[in-house]
Amino acid sequence: MSVVTSPPPVSAALLTDHYELTMVQAARQAGTAGRRSVFELFPRRLPAGRRYGVVAGVGRALDAIEAFRFDGAALAALEGVVDADMLEWLASYRFSGDVWGYAEGEAYFPHSPLLVVEGTFAEAVLLETVLLSVYNHDSAIASAASRMTLAAGGRPCIEMGSRRTHEQAAVAAARAAYVAGFDSTSNLAARAAYGVPSAGTAAHSFTLLHDTEVDAFRAQVQTLGVGTTLLVDTYDVTEAVRLAVEVAGTDLGAVRLDSGDLGLVARDVRAQLDSLGATSTRIVVTSDLDEHAIAALAAAPVDAYGVGTQLVTGSGHPTCGFVYKLVAREGADGELVSVAKRSTDKASVGGRKYALRRRSPAGTAQAEVVGIGERPEDDGDDRSLLVPLVAAGEVVGRASLDEARARHRASVAELPRAVTMMSAGEPVIPTVFEQ
Amino acid sequence: MSVVTSPPPVSAALLTDHYELTMVQAARQAGTAGRRSVFELFPRRLPAGRRYGVVAGVGRALDAIEAFRFDGAALAALEGVVDADMLEWLASYRFSGDVWGYAEGEAYFPHSPLLVVEGTFAEAVLLETVLLSVYNHDSAIASAASRMTLAAGGRPCIEMGSRRTHEQAAVAAARAAYVAGFDSTSNLAARAAYGVPSAGTAAHSFTLLHDTEVDAFRAQVQTLGVGTTLLVDTYDVTEAVRLAVEVAGTDLGAVRLDSGDLGLVARDVRAQLDSLGATSTRIVVTSDLDEHAIAALAAAPVDAYGVGTQLVTGSGHPTCGFVYKLVAREGADGELVSVAKRSTDKASVGGRKYALRRRSPAGTAQAEVVGIGERPEDDGDDRSLLVPLVAAGEVVGRASLDEARARHRASVAELPRAVTMMSAGEPVIPTVFEQ
Repeated sequence: MSVVTSPPPVSAALLTDHYELTMVQAARQAGTAGRRSVFELFPRRLPAGRRYGVVAGVGRALDAIEAFRFDGAALAALEGVVDADMLEWLASYRFSGDVWGYAEGEAYFPHSPLLVVEGTFAEAVLLETVLLSVYNHDSAIASAASRMTLAAGGRPCIEMGSRRTHEQAAVAAARAAYVAGFDSTSNLAARAAYGVPSAGTAAHSFTLLHDTEVDAFRAQVQTLGVGTTLLVDTYDVTEAVRLAVEVAGTDLGAVRLDSGDLGLVARDVRAQLDSLGATSTRIVVTSDLDEHAIAALAAAPVDAYGVGTQLVTGSGHPTCGFVYKLVAREGADGELVSVAKRSTDKASVGGRKYALRRRSPAGTAQAEVVGIGERPEDDGDDRSLLVPLVAAGEVVGRASLDEARARHRASVAELPRAVTMMSAGEPVIPTVFEQ
Repeated sequence: MSVVTSPPPVSAALLTDHYELTMVQAARQAGTAGRRSVFELFPRRLPAGRRYGVVAGVGRALDAIEAFRFDGAALAALEGVVDADMLEWLASYRFSGDVWGYAEGEAYFPHSPLLVVEGTFAEAVLLETVLLSVYNHDSAIASAASRMTLAAGGRPCIEMGSRRTHEQAAVAAARAAYVAGFDSTSNLAARAAYGVPSAGTAAHSFTLLHDTEVDAFRAQVQTLGVGTTLLVDTYDVTEAVRLAVEVAGTDLGAVRLDSGDLGLVARDVRAQLDSLGATSTRIVVTSDLDEHAIAALAAAPVDAYGVGTQLVTGSGHPTCGFVYKLVAREGADGELVSVAKRSTDKASVGGRKYALRRRSPAGTAQAEVVGIGERPEDDGDDRSLLVPLVAAGEVVGRASLDEARARHRASVAELPRAVTMMSAGEPVIPTVFEQ
């Protein structure tokens, strides 16, 4: 997903760290760039206190792989970074390897091998930065969004955070929130690029623009119909609710509350709406909501939650800390050798990984089983987690957002019930390595 | 700044919330859309514990204003959002008003009027979402980056966080960090789009690709020269440093440490390098650094800091919480009227704002003076803060990144010395309203 602003667009292949290119140049000269290699994208842990994570960005990552080409402008921008021979190689670069990964919307746990990328060292290492960027951002948003939709317990959640994050991250955030169960977004680019349903109410500026609140309500109802959502907290809520029903009638779609003690105010407004006969008018609340505030409103007469800042910043965890590590590569004899860094505090587990979710006969998840070097055995009730995404350079694993939403619902539904607890806790299932 | 990936690019004007467009449609039908209006972009407060903030994104915001047009694809995407009459109006939309703002790199405080946007309601409200997105993101990064460069006390800081944030936010983050004193970035798109100097070392995967560590070092030195930075913590640091100097000689540019107790290891490595005669070889440290970790390494023999996650996530504060509020608008009589929301917990101060930094005769900042409705009086040593950015729709306030860097240095240098304290504290100068 991308958006045109000036300065002129830059090739997707430049969404990359300087060292990826210089490493490939060095490996090419050393004769090692063509060694078959397996990279793995995975989390060492969940953010502190989180019980599960949710994978998002898979579709965007596939877009990035397809778009990862060095055009003339990109090559010109790389003069001084790499040498002429390397520029020539980059000009015909195209990922021709294989990728397997968790499906978009899937739950994940510490050490889940979310992506397995196999190709030559050169072609696979070049994708490191952009794959991590997409996964670290989108999954952070989806992981927070999933907790919010669980806390909302079936009441719709509307994504409204565009203004609190980078303008293009906002588009990806709207998409990721939708994967994790949000119903709609305020972001029009997400509507245009991904078909996420968009929705909106009105801002305080609209009320303030008019000479009186009733003028503002009349203007809005006139053009958007009585089904619209009127913002009722610019001046006095009780008076505004009275005016809103006076202007729109008892078929008024909804009112929005954006300040004050939302639970208390919602109760008063519900009673007032009911007493005015507007029994089907819904109450939408906004104002720095997160999963905890949403859960705290469970008993309040609230019909929908608009979530902004805390959604687009991952509710305290704006990035997932995924890493992309070389876990195996061809040796001088042509055989694949497992490799891993030995540093004490950041050691990795070498070897190609496979993964399945172990489930009880009743279908409840029991463990994240990661096989090293070979597939873990399916006990009959288990579910394999790695699906083919790219085969010989061709994208083969594209899923629709509806499929990702369905995957998210099913994946979370089979987790132990502790997944719905908003308090800090351990991952709801353990990760087990099998060799 | 923008980057091409599939799906196809979306017009910059869609980086907007749904309600901005429906509000304009309603105001147009009510005859109020053309009322002259003044919007203000400002922070209600600094993030908890922060002593100052730094404005960034000004240049990107000007880019966004210039690119904010609805092309055919954008209009097609808006069918179902607004009516045909509104689509026709959008087709010729172009901001024709005036904008004043703080210069890029300037320090800011609670209620600093960072942007003042004047135009018709319709043209000014449409910019709300994208202006907030750019300012909230870029200033969060610059505010964190500024503390890091202060903590580094003149030692170079390298931005390396691309992989931990949205791929296009990464480009803006590299730019914002550069404004706030970082020396370079790993991000090649920031180099291409904005001319930020790029730099890189090597990853553990490069060492692991080769049969031995010495093979990897030889390959890197061969292509990048002895001035390169060798990563020495893949296996055993002492052995790696020995090999590094053996391969590159005593003119080796630098070694990088990415794990362990960085202060302790840096001391050992410095002693070892010196004993090997590599007295000018520098030590670069990376590994989840933030401003506190940087400050804690002040006494260690470290020559440069590579900062990733904590930079691109604003070191605990990934967004600034800036808001964009209507503060004045034309009334039925054609006169400009101050307006403000009255909600108890989110009240705003109505009226057009002016700002200056009150300074002592010695040039030390003493207060952020915000004038309501008129310019505060300059005591002779003060500095006016609002500069013209857009006049009658034309960008007039474009500054280079070098100018923004100079502005940042000068602005921070005139703040009280408590600005260098990394502990939590109050804003280093108070904000004073004058009426």
